[in-house]
Amino acid sequence: MNLLVEGGTIITVSHKGIVKDGAIAINDDKIVEVGKTSKLKPKYRRYEKINAKNKVIIPGVTNTHHHAAMSLLRGYADDLDLKTWLEKWIWPIEKHMTGKDIYIGALLTAVESIMGGTTTINTMYHYTDEYNEARAFAEMGLRGVVGHVCFSWRKKQDKRALQSLAKTWHNKKDGLIRASVDPHAPYTVDPEYMKELREFTHELNEKYASPKMPIIWHTHIAETSNEPEKIRQSFKIRVKGGVVEYLDTLEVLSQDVVAAHCVHLTEKDKEILKERRVKVAHNPISNLKLASGISPVPQLLKKGVTVSLGTDSSCSNNSSDMFEVMKVAALLHKGMGNDPTALSAEQALRMATIEGAKALSWDKDIGSIEVGKKADLTIIDFYKPHLRPVYKEESHLVYAVKSADVDTVIINGKIVMEDREVKTVNVDKIMALVEKTKHSLLDRVK
Amino acid sequence: MNLLVEGGTIITVSHKGIVKDGAIAINDDKIVEVGKTSKLKPKYRRYEKINAKNKVIIPGVTNTHHHAAMSLLRGYADDLDLKTWLEKWIWPIEKHMTGKDIYIGALLTAVESIMGGTTTINTMYHYTDEYNEARAFAEMGLRGVVGHVCFSWRKKQDKRALQSLAKTWHNKKDGLIRASVDPHAPYTVDPEYMKELREFTHELNEKYASPKMPIIWHTHIAETSNEPEKIRQSFKIRVKGGVVEYLDTLEVLSQDVVAAHCVHLTEKDKEILKERRVKVAHNPISNLKLASGISPVPQLLKKGVTVSLGTDSSCSNNSSDMFEVMKVAALLHKGMGNDPTALSAEQALRMATIEGAKALSWDKDIGSIEVGKKADLTIIDFYKPHLRPVYKEESHLVYAVKSADVDTVIINGKIVMEDREVKTVNVDKIMALVEKTKHSLLDRVK
Repeated sequence: MNLLVEGGTIITVSHKGIVKDGAIAINDDKIVEVGKTSKLKPKYRRYEKINAKNKVIIPGVTNTHHHAAMSLLRGYADDLDLKTWLEKWIWPIEKHMTGKDIYIGALLTAVESIMGGTTTINTMYHYTDEYNEARAFAEMGLRGVVGHVCFSWRKKQDKRALQSLAKTWHNKKDGLIRASVDPHAPYTVDPEYMKELREFTHELNEKYASPKMPIIWHTHIAETSNEPEKIRQSFKIRVKGGVVEYLDTLEVLSQDVVAAHCVHLTEKDKEILKERRVKVAHNPISNLKLASGISPVPQLLKKGVTVSLGTDSSCSNNSSDMFEVMKVAALLHKGMGNDPTALSAEQALRMATIEGAKALSWDKDIGSIEVGKKADLTIIDFYKPHLRPVYKEESHLVYAVKSADVDTVIINGKIVMEDREVKTVNVDKIMALVEKTKHSLLDRVK
Repeated sequence: MNLLVEGGTIITVSHKGIVKDGAIAINDDKIVEVGKTSKLKPKYRRYEKINAKNKVIIPGVTNTHHHAAMSLLRGYADDLDLKTWLEKWIWPIEKHMTGKDIYIGALLTAVESIMGGTTTINTMYHYTDEYNEARAFAEMGLRGVVGHVCFSWRKKQDKRALQSLAKTWHNKKDGLIRASVDPHAPYTVDPEYMKELREFTHELNEKYASPKMPIIWHTHIAETSNEPEKIRQSFKIRVKGGVVEYLDTLEVLSQDVVAAHCVHLTEKDKEILKERRVKVAHNPISNLKLASGISPVPQLLKKGVTVSLGTDSSCSNNSSDMFEVMKVAALLHKGMGNDPTALSAEQALRMATIEGAKALSWDKDIGSIEVGKKADLTIIDFYKPHLRPVYKEESHLVYAVKSADVDTVIINGKIVMEDREVKTVNVDKIMALVEKTKHSLLDRVK
């Protein structure tokens, strides 16, 4: 399909800056021209039109840390200490979740995300063959990196799942879906297995992937302060220094690793993240809600580490709302650093778009509005009282826009939502499925 | 008008707890019965109906610290250090604001607030006779305490304005609007003037108010750490101890004082706040954005101090969104206190409703859904993907509901918004006025 988005303010998140009264021409899945509406309108007059008057167009937003299936447990347990929360609430119910439940939870996250302007999600959960998160994202038309989470206690099962995931889903659905290898955390994946997974990732890449579209890693690093102690308890290893330093001794860190959290870092850890070009997925809302601590984001940015943003699961957030995450990130690091100039609106917006794309090794294709990139666009309606007056669009995008202001979403050149109507799936049907699944889960956990 | 809100889940924020499939009967401005829909429906069958199926009804939300007029400057200046922000940006443009501009800014805040479920605002700004914030709130049908901000450099002008405000607006518009006396801050109001204002408030109360509906105080206390130094510079007074302790020596603190911020407090300050029954209006978003510090809210709550919530102005937030404030408050004190059980969803919801009402000495009339109280209700549509599934309504209200989920708002028994359509004013006209005013202001400031 050929599309012309016209008459809006385009925040390109590239060296082209902002285009007022701008238009974007799309051929099939690609952006072919970006410029003034007056110039593009006559040239592309036969293209289907999307009127973006009073609207602001940004690159599709990327959520770089999620467990999409867990939206099924949104609000199931809150305001508890970590041990009670996990051991008494989350784990007992999670073990009853079937592949079908995982698929339904991921569908819910996918709908919510589209309706909030997120076009790409990096998700980590258990992969099962028939029903899974990849299938949900594919049906929704959402772009995603879908992983299988690996633990020492199920190595064989993990490798089978990873093999199947990579074969079935990597670079499938017109390249919308990619696979990842997801070692859960340094304290649940023993050092030998960590190295094995590195080797296995190499094999999977040789077999199913290309350097342009790699199978990457997605893991949790340094979320809580007691990770060195947990590693000692699990594997009888005494971690000298920080957890990143420990992982580096295993030679598993590289530019293809998306490391969620990175809250508790030593100075050396920060250096290693930079040196190995590890990507940090910052989840400010989840970190606050679980009282994990505050990631030293301004310091990481200063060092030149790629820092992107994520919601984390709907158990620790409880929304898949990246506009909220942008605002909280920008606020939190001002407050923590005692510096109102820290993490500007522009920086927060970059973290949710181009830096997110970099984090997923996908920035050749997405993350900014540029000719040759995939047409992933989030179009926001600024004709609302809470977005008036307008002095500077970037300020509103981070400090005033709400997810419900997202009007239209285009992914891979396809209109997934228009005027807030989701085009690819039946939203009522998904909501009904979710309620039914909740009741069935509660029956099983009794 | 007689109204029956029926078929919804009622969070009463009272000892009655939650009523599922509940109904609320309203005669004119008052709640006359709260119970099961099955019981109330036959009894009130001639009443106009509001169907609250799939909806959750909470007491109207109270925003206890705002400068409503300043929404006109939303996004005008961000990410700057406090001195540059105030001296180079905010003050130069504010001095060009006329009464009409103030009125238009307050209209904008009022519309935004209604659309986000806020039914009462406590606002501090400059009062002018013909056009002012009170007029804007009254036209909107919004409940509010409207103050005039007092400074040492304009004592005579202040007293004239306060007199006019109290006479014209206190307990007017069916009791929707109340007046307040607003000493700006301990470093801009000298000790003599502070005491004078206390005496003057007494006179105004004698003349225009009743003990049930008093003219209260609204002020800023201990927002930044350098207030003792600012007091020394302004008035050559050496503040020993904290700023609250200093104010207490002036004998101006009492249960009618709404003290915004209270970030930098000594232990003695906290004791005095409790002892004098001063009300604290906590503004977590504004405090983070301006890097003012974090108010010790859990400690204040533990002492039994009344702590309510506010957005502060749209220059330091930049939204009048109390659902966002509830979420950030609940998150922030978990993160800061390293305690995921701190400030539960229930507590945050109380702070935005009944504690807000207490802060404004208005809890006999508002803040909970109880027979005999004014019918101020916020009705939220839970039939949305991001609010599914539902395990516990209070969790969603704080961690997942967005301002745009507010469906219907009733104030003083009158429907101010229904199915997101504002009934009392023309929203398009206000947005047009706001844009026009912005251009005119920018011309004047050049």
